[in-house]
Amino acid sequence: MADVAREAGVSIATVSRALRGRPGVGEETSRRIRAVAERLAYVVSPEASHLSRRETGRVAVVVPQLAPWFYATMVGEVVRLLRDAGLDTLLYEVDGPEERGRFVEELPARRKVDAVVLLALPLTPSQRDRLDLLGVRVVVAGGRLRDLPHVEVDDLAVAHTAVDHLVGLGHRDIAMVRTSDTDETPWEADLLRSRGWSERLRHHGLEPREELRVTVEIGPRAGVEAVQRLLALPQRPTAVFAYSDELAAGVVVGAREAGLRVPEDLSVIGVDGHPIAELLDLTTVDQHVAEQAARTVTTVLHLVGRTADGDPVDPAEQVGHAAEPLSVVLDHTLVVRSSTAPPSSAG
Amino acid sequence: MADVAREAGVSIATVSRALRGRPGVGEETSRRIRAVAERLAYVVSPEASHLSRRETGRVAVVVPQLAPWFYATMVGEVVRLLRDAGLDTLLYEVDGPEERGRFVEELPARRKVDAVVLLALPLTPSQRDRLDLLGVRVVVAGGRLRDLPHVEVDDLAVAHTAVDHLVGLGHRDIAMVRTSDTDETPWEADLLRSRGWSERLRHHGLEPREELRVTVEIGPRAGVEAVQRLLALPQRPTAVFAYSDELAAGVVVGAREAGLRVPEDLSVIGVDGHPIAELLDLTTVDQHVAEQAARTVTTVLHLVGRTADGDPVDPAEQVGHAAEPLSVVLDHTLVVRSSTAPPSSAG
Repeated sequence: MADVAREAGVSIATVSRALRGRPGVGEETSRRIRAVAERLAYVVSPEASHLSRRETGRVAVVVPQLAPWFYATMVGEVVRLLRDAGLDTLLYEVDGPEERGRFVEELPARRKVDAVVLLALPLTPSQRDRLDLLGVRVVVAGGRLRDLPHVEVDDLAVAHTAVDHLVGLGHRDIAMVRTSDTDETPWEADLLRSRGWSERLRHHGLEPREELRVTVEIGPRAGVEAVQRLLALPQRPTAVFAYSDELAAGVVVGAREAGLRVPEDLSVIGVDGHPIAELLDLTTVDQHVAEQAARTVTTVLHLVGRTADGDPVDPAEQVGHAAEPLSVVLDHTLVVRSSTAPPSSAG
Repeated sequence: MADVAREAGVSIATVSRALRGRPGVGEETSRRIRAVAERLAYVVSPEASHLSRRETGRVAVVVPQLAPWFYATMVGEVVRLLRDAGLDTLLYEVDGPEERGRFVEELPARRKVDAVVLLALPLTPSQRDRLDLLGVRVVVAGGRLRDLPHVEVDDLAVAHTAVDHLVGLGHRDIAMVRTSDTDETPWEADLLRSRGWSERLRHHGLEPREELRVTVEIGPRAGVEAVQRLLALPQRPTAVFAYSDELAAGVVVGAREAGLRVPEDLSVIGVDGHPIAELLDLTTVDQHVAEQAARTVTTVLHLVGRTADGDPVDPAEQVGHAAEPLSVVLDHTLVVRSSTAPPSSAG
């Protein structure tokens, strides 16, 4: 575009405006610019041509559930930051396999938005293919889907961090507690944290015994139920890695209800950085949800060509930015609190 | 409208369509209907004329914060039920006095939606007046504003229920723990529960000592801080009424950290029906959030003239419905669990 601008003797912004048919460029100038562009075989980049479509000023955010802390916090942040950029948010809650199927079939967000954010939404392969029909940019947050731009933590590494912490304290019988979506669709974060648990135990020369991987149905007392099952085993674990802080809180409550002390009799670590972890003084792997939200919005704004303040980005700059990676893997942080300690009877 | 239909010899639906200028009525019939309507001095009801405006198929939901459980649960339910009725949800998070001021100034939802749901949004009197500029139906949920249609629990009665429960168990030194929005705008549910605490104590012949009303800044350990302050008093309370279950959970954790047993040394009751109350076995006043959401959506659909399945309502029926109350006060339920008991040293 810089070549066209130089040749036509106008600014890059003027070239961009003229090629996108925007007002503010005189007819004569516009004709000259188009002629130069044609002569130089200049092709409007996909980034820039996207801008020429009629904008709705809206972004759709799709979540499987809104009530869990991770989703509510992510969505709250995303909505606020999109608004700062002058964009409205259309929210869709798509809970369970049936509603997911219906959503992907009907695609209610289609033609209503400039971009769609899918927030840790589990989809089958054929459902993933239908996303192309949305006809707009799609950003995946809290996971990844196909080759779409995504923002996530490395859930395999999250599990490694948790297991390393417990092994480092001297634990050898380390359980994993998780909830399931109870249908066939893979829940990516769950699969990866679960795989990370078993492969990291092996890495440390420990056997991931299958009875130590407990799957419970989601609910307020899911963690309580999980620890009850673990305590019924002939060889009890001395430590639990829970999929989330909410589950970890349940494990702590269940352990105390069973007369165990935390951490003396049972160490517990969760994932999230949830307020309940601070309240109950739980060790956790913080996945920096607010930062995930911020990076998600940055990616969306980049794709729809806006700055964080809502100004349109100069397409010339846009082209320069296109080389930047649109997939972000954020760091996580181990936060050690009082729910983990060396096992009381070492060995 | 029935009179017009009888006189013109057509169905009520046809009259409605003709008067609203909708297609499907022949020119001759339409003319006859309008003539009859004029002769009978029939005036299209506000309910029906509202239908003639161009519909957007969208409803705006405005919350002060999304992350707290009450809001996330309400919004999740509202979004799902609106979608069942074929309506999209535009979500706005308007946190703190500055953003509230900006929202009410700019009214970003204006002309973009068929209705606006304000979810427990604290507004100053002048901010309330500006809501008229939205130009669409406004429904208030989780509180009330001016004379707008609203769905709520009776927060005064919620406090009465909690105080009655504690007094009934024999408590006389009953504290109230609340968080503040830290600005001047009245937070209605807080004011009412706080007032309910003091007036119900007086009703039972007890003095609401001001040092027993503790206000803490919102945060994961707000309840812990509150109970620390209460335990530092020369005359400690034997029971605590907490504004929310999240606060109540903090009070329980703080009491245990201070070496007290719950309920033997301190009874604790919250409000909400939050999963943490089930997890920690806390007594609570359940405010039936899912039902509040459902009634909110019913009210919105009534105002925009849709059924729960998304079909337009026959305006004839609509007129009949208009007499129904658009303000709903839902029941709350006392859920007694193990965090409340008679004081151990009676008297």
